[in-house]
Amino acid sequence: MKYRTEKDTMGKVRVPADAYYGAQTQRSVENFKIAADINRMPREVIHAFAYLKKAAAITNMEAEILSPEKCDLIVRVCDEIAEGKLDDSFPLVVWQTGSGTQTNMNVNEVIANRGHVLNGGKLADREKILLPNDDVNKSQSSNDVFPTAMHIAACRMLTETTIPGIRALHGTLMEKSAEYAKVVKIGRTHFMDATPLTLGQELSGYAAQLGNALAAIEKILPRLGQLAIGGTAVGTGVNAPKDFAVKAAARIAELTGLPFVTAPNKFEALATHDALVEAHGALRLAAVSLMKIANDIRMLSSGPRAGIGEIRIPENEPGSSIMPGKVNPTQCEALTMIAAQVMGNDTAISIGGSNGHFELNVFKPMIIYNFLHSARLLGEGCASFDEHCAKGIEPMYENIKKHLDNSLMLVTALSPKIGYYKSAEIARKAYEENILLREAAVGSGYVTEEEFDKWVDPARMVTVR
Amino acid sequence: MKYRTEKDTMGKVRVPADAYYGAQTQRSVENFKIAADINRMPREVIHAFAYLKKAAAITNMEAEILSPEKCDLIVRVCDEIAEGKLDDSFPLVVWQTGSGTQTNMNVNEVIANRGHVLNGGKLADREKILLPNDDVNKSQSSNDVFPTAMHIAACRMLTETTIPGIRALHGTLMEKSAEYAKVVKIGRTHFMDATPLTLGQELSGYAAQLGNALAAIEKILPRLGQLAIGGTAVGTGVNAPKDFAVKAAARIAELTGLPFVTAPNKFEALATHDALVEAHGALRLAAVSLMKIANDIRMLSSGPRAGIGEIRIPENEPGSSIMPGKVNPTQCEALTMIAAQVMGNDTAISIGGSNGHFELNVFKPMIIYNFLHSARLLGEGCASFDEHCAKGIEPMYENIKKHLDNSLMLVTALSPKIGYYKSAEIARKAYEENILLREAAVGSGYVTEEEFDKWVDPARMVTVR
Amino acid sequence: MKYRTEKDTMGKVRVPADAYYGAQTQRSVENFKIAADINRMPREVIHAFAYLKKAAAITNMEAEILSPEKCDLIVRVCDEIAEGKLDDSFPLVVWQTGSGTQTNMNVNEVIANRGHVLNGGKLADREKILLPNDDVNKSQSSNDVFPTAMHIAACRMLTETTIPGIRALHGTLMEKSAEYAKVVKIGRTHFMDATPLTLGQELSGYAAQLGNALAAIEKILPRLGQLAIGGTAVGTGVNAPKDFAVKAAARIAELTGLPFVTAPNKFEALATHDALVEAHGALRLAAVSLMKIANDIRMLSSGPRAGIGEIRIPENEPGSSIMPGKVNPTQCEALTMIAAQVMGNDTAISIGGSNGHFELNVFKPMIIYNFLHSARLLGEGCASFDEHCAKGIEPMYENIKKHLDNSLMLVTALSPKIGYYKSAEIARKAYEENILLREAAVGSGYVTEEEFDKWVDPARMVTVR
Amino acid sequence: MKYRTEKDTMGKVRVPADAYYGAQTQRSVENFKIAADINRMPREVIHAFAYLKKAAAITNMEAEILSPEKCDLIVRVCDEIAEGKLDDSFPLVVWQTGSGTQTNMNVNEVIANRGHVLNGGKLADREKILLPNDDVNKSQSSNDVFPTAMHIAACRMLTETTIPGIRALHGTLMEKSAEYAKVVKIGRTHFMDATPLTLGQELSGYAAQLGNALAAIEKILPRLGQLAIGGTAVGTGVNAPKDFAVKAAARIAELTGLPFVTAPNKFEALATHDALVEAHGALRLAAVSLMKIANDIRMLSSGPRAGIGEIRIPENEPGSSIMPGKVNPTQCEALTMIAAQVMGNDTAISIGGSNGHFELNVFKPMIIYNFLHSARLLGEGCASFDEHCAKGIEPMYENIKKHLDNSLMLVTALSPKIGYYKSAEIARKAYEENILLREAAVGSGYVTEEEFDKWVDPARMVTVR
Repeated sequence: MKYRTEKDTMGKVRVPADAYYGAQTQRSVENFKIAADINRMPREVIHAFAYLKKAAAITNMEAEILSPEKCDLIVRVCDEIAEGKLDDSFPLVVWQTGSGTQTNMNVNEVIANRGHVLNGGKLADREKILLPNDDVNKSQSSNDVFPTAMHIAACRMLTETTIPGIRALHGTLMEKSAEYAKVVKIGRTHFMDATPLTLGQELSGYAAQLGNALAAIEKILPRLGQLAIGGTAVGTGVNAPKDFAVKAAARIAELTGLPFVTAPNKFEALATHDALVEAHGALRLAAVSLMKIANDIRMLSSGPRAGIGEIRIPENEPGSSIMPGKVNPTQCEALTMIAAQVMGNDTAISIGGSNGHFELNVFKPMIIYNFLHSARLLGEGCASFDEHCAKGIEPMYENIKKHLDNSLMLVTALSPKIGYYKSAEIARKAYEENILLREAAVGSGYVTEEEFDKWVDPARMVTVR
Repeated sequence: MKYRTEKDTMGKVRVPADAYYGAQTQRSVENFKIAADINRMPREVIHAFAYLKKAAAITNMEAEILSPEKCDLIVRVCDEIAEGKLDDSFPLVVWQTGSGTQTNMNVNEVIANRGHVLNGGKLADREKILLPNDDVNKSQSSNDVFPTAMHIAACRMLTETTIPGIRALHGTLMEKSAEYAKVVKIGRTHFMDATPLTLGQELSGYAAQLGNALAAIEKILPRLGQLAIGGTAVGTGVNAPKDFAVKAAARIAELTGLPFVTAPNKFEALATHDALVEAHGALRLAAVSLMKIANDIRMLSSGPRAGIGEIRIPENEPGSSIMPGKVNPTQCEALTMIAAQVMGNDTAISIGGSNGHFELNVFKPMIIYNFLHSARLLGEGCASFDEHCAKGIEPMYENIKKHLDNSLMLVTALSPKIGYYKSAEIARKAYEENILLREAAVGSGYVTEEEFDKWVDPARMVTVR
Repeated sequence: MKYRTEKDTMGKVRVPADAYYGAQTQRSVENFKIAADINRMPREVIHAFAYLKKAAAITNMEAEILSPEKCDLIVRVCDEIAEGKLDDSFPLVVWQTGSGTQTNMNVNEVIANRGHVLNGGKLADREKILLPNDDVNKSQSSNDVFPTAMHIAACRMLTETTIPGIRALHGTLMEKSAEYAKVVKIGRTHFMDATPLTLGQELSGYAAQLGNALAAIEKILPRLGQLAIGGTAVGTGVNAPKDFAVKAAARIAELTGLPFVTAPNKFEALATHDALVEAHGALRLAAVSLMKIANDIRMLSSGPRAGIGEIRIPENEPGSSIMPGKVNPTQCEALTMIAAQVMGNDTAISIGGSNGHFELNVFKPMIIYNFLHSARLLGEGCASFDEHCAKGIEPMYENIKKHLDNSLMLVTALSPKIGYYKSAEIARKAYEENILLREAAVGSGYVTEEEFDKWVDPARMVTVR
Repeated sequence: MKYRTEKDTMGKVRVPADAYYGAQTQRSVENFKIAADINRMPREVIHAFAYLKKAAAITNMEAEILSPEKCDLIVRVCDEIAEGKLDDSFPLVVWQTGSGTQTNMNVNEVIANRGHVLNGGKLADREKILLPNDDVNKSQSSNDVFPTAMHIAACRMLTETTIPGIRALHGTLMEKSAEYAKVVKIGRTHFMDATPLTLGQELSGYAAQLGNALAAIEKILPRLGQLAIGGTAVGTGVNAPKDFAVKAAARIAELTGLPFVTAPNKFEALATHDALVEAHGALRLAAVSLMKIANDIRMLSSGPRAGIGEIRIPENEPGSSIMPGKVNPTQCEALTMIAAQVMGNDTAISIGGSNGHFELNVFKPMIIYNFLHSARLLGEGCASFDEHCAKGIEPMYENIKKHLDNSLMLVTALSPKIGYYKSAEIARKAYEENILLREAAVGSGYVTEEEFDKWVDPARMVTVR
């Protein structure tokens, strides 16, 4: 490979001759050989940087501390980055400095060098039109722009992937709930037979869960919309011009189409990631909900002969490499694995979030890596589950009827009529003699056949009043 | 000890002669000998039951399915329970059935038996005026009343203990922040010297954290205010009269003075505890914030001779059994231990919340035990920290000045004037030659003495624009 | 209440007149009003202190730095404490200083004061025969004795409660596994019907899990047997006589009957609780195992009419306050709640364990509180589950046979004979036409009746080779 | 793109014309579009499959149920896979079926198709020499081979990356500990000044931590060395020949050079991943240890002017994009982020491990993904930290001396001479009057100058006896 020599305040560094990045990026490549092929800084963070660097340049130009020419070059490179055209120029990994400084410098270097090239220069030129720190990073510090990029990336992922994915599944569950609103089936509490409900009611519970999770995620967006930019090194905004914070945030809002504003307290915005900790609490809620929903669906569809078998789900692939003809609830399994992962990510984020010191939290790359991972898994996992499983849910009427007809817990309807004790006696008798409830009830002498048929009516037992 | 014989649907049971509880409570005492002396069902849950049983009785009476006499007796016992007078009658532990059925029956039995005694009867009477299931539990199931009690207990704890405790500490930090708004000190990022800020600004970050945590907790209260009561066995409300759900919730709101309403989807309200999972996310946020704050305060007050020593905190007790004269940041330590505990409780609640099956989540006692534990620890921990530590925070001016005067990172103010590279050269020189920044700067020839004194002004560097 | 005045190095404090504790305990009572009624320092820690204070006194006496008279008094009080006679003298809570200094001083004060009384003195005497720091705490620091008490308490809990409880359940599962070694039943993978196994084999998997968990717990005991005592303030052993560490540990071993030794590196032993973090990993393993086992058992016993119903478990109490005759797997529920709790405690301990600074970890009380909680819950939870559930497990032969006879996955046995594809075709046909596998197989023309009966033999399919 | 048509038991599927994989892989690609670019099944699992498929083929051949020709083809493809030559043929993601069936089929298909090509055939041929299920998967089920691949991958990662990485760091800490064995410095407990120790002693504590973590990881290897292969579908080994389990494990041991054996209980080995849960407990221990160590090192090296500054660590890169000349403890930050990640992964694995049902745990891909992630991060993170930080640790003698000379806690040495109370009085006086301890001591009249100099000797205070 060919190399050129770049330098930073620590001295000279050999860099691949055609790389847009410079000395500091190269140092980091060499100093942090940790999971390099699987844990690159998420491209969403890089793309978020493109928006903020563009916004910062324009704001600096408007403050007349950056020339229109330089601004224009920066803007052009940022557009390329945002489109993903320079993804290969960002080789750094998550496991670097905890402030993300090296990724900020990676971005600064790429913008400076690529801008120089766009301006007609060569990478090997000793003097370049843009300086990474003095021009591209002007009015900024890693300490404020990295958290800003974190929030931009998080908000974009939530609005573009997470919310649409969960919403799709929510919609399907709502539809299915309406469609099967009258399919009376046995209920189960403690995994044991209980009083009846309808399949639509059962599904409505899942829909309600996701509705709540969606509300929780949406409720957190304004908090995530608060940006640290303008706080610079420690939150005071040293070296940034007047009103830079407000204007840069407004510009980012304009560029992304998302309602970003400046954070009310920059000290909090640099020293903590409470906003992301809080937001991930909403993702964790979604994970908890989905674990329950996916578990229920796999159990309800279990069998085909020796399970519960009250619903059918789509058969998407052969289920077993050894058992011919087997079909498994694979989408449920992917979703429950995702739920577990998100709950794990939640722990990592809490720990990282709690361990900041003084003016800076230095678990930034780890926190955003986990946050984006969770947000994406939930969104894409729900979309997959919706498309390949939920949409195909159908009742297995025969099994549903069989379970309902045999149920002993319909006895509950007798309780207000003859009391809990006598009712229990009847249920007990039916169970021990292995007979139908009606037979036991009438045989007990406590109720007549007519009373039983009038009082014990599953369809009436499921009517919410 | 003397015993009497009680019975339930499974047969006879010997119960201590003077116990208000009955057969089912006794069975549970015998079947669940697990951490009996340390993990009783939280009394807050028992007291919450008193409100709901009273509300249910009144609602039943109004629906004309419970006589005014019986209602009156139930109400009188509930008032005694709510006042804590019958606490000894609730011996059951957290580690029982996952629906809390046995605690619900414990309450039903105590109300029935104590009501009978209030009515002039004796515990040993074979026939009693109130029946635990048919009268006290009328229109109810453990499956809806236990979650209702969970929400009542949670809301009360949050509003009476958690929020006031955090708010007190928040208020003190706000005051201290204002008081020390002009005390310029060195900032620290990566635990390393950075540009200056004021002590007031540093404290304002902590205050902002707690302000956000308070907002998160308050935001969740309406969600916790949704009550499951009226859903009965599986969410359909079987065996409850028309409008019972709405009326009982309204009555509970009236009795507690808190804005409770009926849950919009009872299936979700029984089968999941997503509301508590979500709410605990807010408590977890507070824990994460407090870990950071307490850590900073202990580090800022470290020393007295070989630490950072920029603030002084109250000396509350001798710190060491072996080192005479030692004083330690004990309130910080209690608070960080609490933070760790809450983060652990968070994991337990997530796991419990995600493992419900079909129409019921059966991790109820564990979930509310952990929730109340967290809520109380945070509230009382903050109150203690506020009273015995935060209120006494004072600057150590001498150390603050020494650190600021020696700082190299004031060089940052030169960067916009002479560029990042030359500035770095100056900082480097000062560090290596162990001289003051001013000396290095002037010695470098890049700035004059006048320029240095004009440009490098800590007081101006901390002005948020 | 009556009071007397006590003093410590910070001055005078009013203490209840008849309390054995002194000034420092009283300060802590007043400074840490946090969960005071539910989170007292675990009595196991107090009792552990009794062993170590006795051992320390004897070792000091042998080193001729403590008089035999004083030693004798200390020993006598320690014996009282170990017997639980002075439990009321230890009012402090978990949420105190993170080194447990105040509990160490509580112990020192109680021993000094009670010793003085045993010697014929009065609590109100100004001069007492024993001094808390100079005599009772001689050669010790909270920093080494509190971790020592942690290890003693942990080892005792593990050997007296945790291991016996798990072992009992393990034994029962082994017995049941042998008893039902020939009961062929359907297997389930992905919660779907699979090839058969025997009930004994299924139970053997659970037994193997607990066997492994027991091995993991036992394997950690030698690590927990390493004691910090002798390290004093920071690990150097300052102010302790020569060989104090080795001799005190040996004495504790003798007094407790457990194989304690001195920790090889005292700096590690004070500054970290890696030993407890590691040990709790073994408890967490047990929790993970028990979650699986208890889940399986409740699912296998589900029904009675609309579940899986392949085993019967004991009916211990009426299951529902509203559904007469309902019986629930309550022991499974307690055990799974315990599993969730232990997994939560695991997070708390990890966080506490990771946050030590320099020469001391100051999450000590929180760590031991959670450790003992987990160890006790697992031990008592398993004992309860064993006694009230596992011992009563019985096959439901009728359901087992029905599920097996209907199974389609017996087709797997045809695969080596006619290939995976044709076998899948047969299974598919049987499923779609809702016929028995044999009928579909013979109907396919791929196998004769004789071949089917010879090749598809569930009993042979379960023979481990 | 060009396509060819492949089929499985569910029908025909279009597959890229030159892909070695077949119908089932393609179905999974389409059905699980979840984090596809960042969460491919770890290549270590794929490579592990190569060893086991090769071992299975040879074992089948020796059992005379697979022809030598077919065996030879399978072996040749496996060798290519193990060398990483076919990595592109494995496009599936972690978020698929929870048994990993689709990855097993991916491997089976690639081996069958590539084997056919090696044999001179074409991918488009309708009939191929090897069948994925009947030949390549012979005597196997995903249910036993996926866990086998998990254990192989885990053991290889631990022995090749994790252990060497931690061991390197451990070695460096041991060396540094010896090198600085006599550098007396102040100790810190509660982050406050305490009695002295040597820098070597301090570092020895870290080394001891890592020594224990290494021992814990090594201790778990035999448990991970137990392989599920031979259990086939549910643990009974149906469709596998006699002794297949033992022989296949022995063959895997031979091929990998690692001491694998057959698992003693196959039901446990399929239905649970307790072995990996337990093993990850050891990784979590390492994470907890490293969090402490890296935290201490960054704090000890803090400054340069306003921190603790007792050690110097290498300066690897410019630390700030805004503060010229700043240098940060970046390796510490990467390592603490890794520690947080491993603790998060630990939660995910616990949750996955606890949620198996009946004969199969279906969180397999998620569990191994997290396990390998942790194992790699720890190994590579420690190697990086060792190389770029630990090896360069040097004492800052001037600061060490200053802190020690000023220390008040040397007063501890007076305690055995004049008692705890008088000693505290002296420390107090020195603190309040801001004088040296010696001055306060002599001024108190309790000790003479000669006594002070004789008794208070830091070098003697650090001598472990």
